[in-house]
Amino acid sequence: MADWKFLGAAEGVDAIRAGKLDVETWANLCLERVAERDDAVRAWAWLDPQQVRDEARELDKYDAARPLHGVPIGVKDIIDTGNMPTQYNSPIYRHFQPAADAACVALLRAAGALIFGKAETVEFASNARKAVSRNPFSPERSPGGSSSGSGAAVGDGQVPIALGTQTGGSVIRPASFCGAFAMKPTWGTVSRDGVKTYAPTLDTIGWYARNPRDLRLVYDVYDTLEVERDVPANAHSTADGATSDLSGMRLAVCRSPFEDRAAPETLKLLDETADRLREAGATVVPLSLPAHFQTLAAAHFTIMRAEGRVSFLREYRTERHRLHDFIADHFAPHPEVTRQALLQAYDLAATCRIEFDELAGEVDGIITPSSVGYAPQGRDDTGDPVLNAMWTLLHAPCIHLPSVASWLELPLGVTLTGPRGSDRRLLTLAEAITAAGIAAANPLRH
Amino acid sequence: MADWKFLGAAEGVDAIRAGKLDVETWANLCLERVAERDDAVRAWAWLDPQQVRDEARELDKYDAARPLHGVPIGVKDIIDTGNMPTQYNSPIYRHFQPAADAACVALLRAAGALIFGKAETVEFASNARKAVSRNPFSPERSPGGSSSGSGAAVGDGQVPIALGTQTGGSVIRPASFCGAFAMKPTWGTVSRDGVKTYAPTLDTIGWYARNPRDLRLVYDVYDTLEVERDVPANAHSTADGATSDLSGMRLAVCRSPFEDRAAPETLKLLDETADRLREAGATVVPLSLPAHFQTLAAAHFTIMRAEGRVSFLREYRTERHRLHDFIADHFAPHPEVTRQALLQAYDLAATCRIEFDELAGEVDGIITPSSVGYAPQGRDDTGDPVLNAMWTLLHAPCIHLPSVASWLELPLGVTLTGPRGSDRRLLTLAEAITAAGIAAANPLRH
Repeated sequence: MADWKFLGAAEGVDAIRAGKLDVETWANLCLERVAERDDAVRAWAWLDPQQVRDEARELDKYDAARPLHGVPIGVKDIIDTGNMPTQYNSPIYRHFQPAADAACVALLRAAGALIFGKAETVEFASNARKAVSRNPFSPERSPGGSSSGSGAAVGDGQVPIALGTQTGGSVIRPASFCGAFAMKPTWGTVSRDGVKTYAPTLDTIGWYARNPRDLRLVYDVYDTLEVERDVPANAHSTADGATSDLSGMRLAVCRSPFEDRAAPETLKLLDETADRLREAGATVVPLSLPAHFQTLAAAHFTIMRAEGRVSFLREYRTERHRLHDFIADHFAPHPEVTRQALLQAYDLAATCRIEFDELAGEVDGIITPSSVGYAPQGRDDTGDPVLNAMWTLLHAPCIHLPSVASWLELPLGVTLTGPRGSDRRLLTLAEAITAAGIAAANPLRH
Repeated sequence: MADWKFLGAAEGVDAIRAGKLDVETWANLCLERVAERDDAVRAWAWLDPQQVRDEARELDKYDAARPLHGVPIGVKDIIDTGNMPTQYNSPIYRHFQPAADAACVALLRAAGALIFGKAETVEFASNARKAVSRNPFSPERSPGGSSSGSGAAVGDGQVPIALGTQTGGSVIRPASFCGAFAMKPTWGTVSRDGVKTYAPTLDTIGWYARNPRDLRLVYDVYDTLEVERDVPANAHSTADGATSDLSGMRLAVCRSPFEDRAAPETLKLLDETADRLREAGATVVPLSLPAHFQTLAAAHFTIMRAEGRVSFLREYRTERHRLHDFIADHFAPHPEVTRQALLQAYDLAATCRIEFDELAGEVDGIITPSSVGYAPQGRDDTGDPVLNAMWTLLHAPCIHLPSVASWLELPLGVTLTGPRGSDRRLLTLAEAITAAGIAAANPLRH
């Protein structure tokens, strides 16, 4: 038997279909990895090994036809699960047990997945009470937030896939810090029913994986606009043959309107990635966004704060004493959080989306930084989301590619983005870039 | 004791505070009305009189300081309640019992409300399986949909307030057919956590009441952007003194880009309402929207269908045999439901919002039809939402004003609308128009 410890999702499903693996064995491999590493990483808010084994044995009674048959998937703990508590890392919701799965979880189960456990989150997927999770590559550092446990668990090889959510940079940033692949699809791709809301205009469900083929496997479960039309049901099975020749591909490098916030390693990695892409045959051009895109950071703040008031009003009014100051601060008067500012922010974002899609449509994909630098020291700072928030507000799909650059001291990577709805094209590009040896999951350790 | 059968919410709270009423008595008055009328109206998907009385007695132990102290409120049955089943009028969710209240319900409870029962809804607040409810003014006719039971219960005087939701015209249309006041606030005003989603870009929680003062009472509970700043806590208590002099008010009449769909009674009522407003002192001007607003109906269809696919994918994939054809049809290939059409619809709506707010900002409020005509015959047709859907897509606040016109054969009214965020101004206008004797709840019967 090969080293199946860090088995990818599609790879595992293939092995089960080929009779080389069963779900219970796979689940136990993941549980062993958790047992080895949990003291150091602390990715899980709730995990019951017996429940995992029971579910695995149940799944072994079925044939392996479903696309995610037996794949162990971690779920960020702001997403409801009908058979596990959902606590939002909030004392208000301690031991809270939802009556049903969130839609995004139910769809994974219907696709055959084994829901493995609840991954640690920053309180309400915000910047309030931090997760207890540690960076798997450096225990004194943050795994990023708010999808701290999801990024850490996949980066550490404890599960092949985990769900997260992004309102600012909460999917992509932990991926960058933890050496995982990740995808934040176009806004609206996945139902948010049963997921605790922060800001409806921004909140997007995304996921972590150890290779781009697995990102696509999950995307195929959720996509409602293309999957019937032009993607064969077994599309993922052919992805092994992804081209590594990038010639004919036209990529842009966007240093981001906020590049002054980036550390040297981030800018060096972006330039070097552009060089590697050129070496692999791609045409790489620079992309500068119009000056008024600078104001999207303020618009993002206004929307997050104003919509956050609506979302947290219930807890603020009924359980204020158990609410973190960061959340309570949303309700303080603020000159940028007024009805007029909110409407202006909506309208600016809407017009920038139109402009960005047009600009981005001139290339196959855009490379931009995923985080301002390496994971920060300590647990209090989960990292600056400034380089992610604009893409979230633009509703643009983002794929994080962990870099293989040998000079890196810690995981770091780049974001591949494009116009709304270009998710599938970006997945194909991500597969090609990975096949060309430019990206790989946590290359520092394995 | 005055005739307290059709007591308004603010009026009831005032009576309790004055020691003239207690919550139990009020709840019993509502239960008596239900007992009298339930065979004819069938507004309730779930109602337990004993639970209502128990809650009422519990509330009577508190002082009456909270703004909705003891107010019996019906809740549309696509909104979660932690102490009552929530069934979406879907066989899939028969007997489903959520673990917690939706945020919008929890906030009403925190404001002192008595959650009275679950109001009938069209399946998933769509146009699928119809509610069993009947129009309280004409049992062979529809109460409208999808908030069928909420509109019928308030129009029939069974409860002073009920929550509904609108994706096309599901709050305003039942109000027009049932002779109730109603408010659909600016999109995003109320958290949708715990409410079954249809289309996130459209879904808006609204409410029914028997007078505009009560609409404001609920709005004050939910508003997060103005209430702390410029509205005194006891604002509603002064509303009795609302001016009936409309001089100085500048109103526009918008015959809607879809007026060709309107029946004679609707157009006649609109013209007559304009006359009445002029007589009361208002300046009334016509408002024509730019020609491209005509295309908003198609954009609304595209967004509802495309987002509906995301929202119903879970039920479609796991319980298709128990899903109404109307929902399943969302997943059929459709030339207007493509990713490209969806993005174009989003962008058209966003630019029209900017244009509309500018146009609408030139007047204090806009009067436009609420329904194409009287409530349709039978239960299968809940009425055409075409005159409401554009406002929903524009995220514009809408208040339904039931008309007192003596020639009306059945309830009918007009919508008062304006730019996003003008909710409070519209409430003030609605109070003035009502004080001027132009609008009143179900004037045909009482």
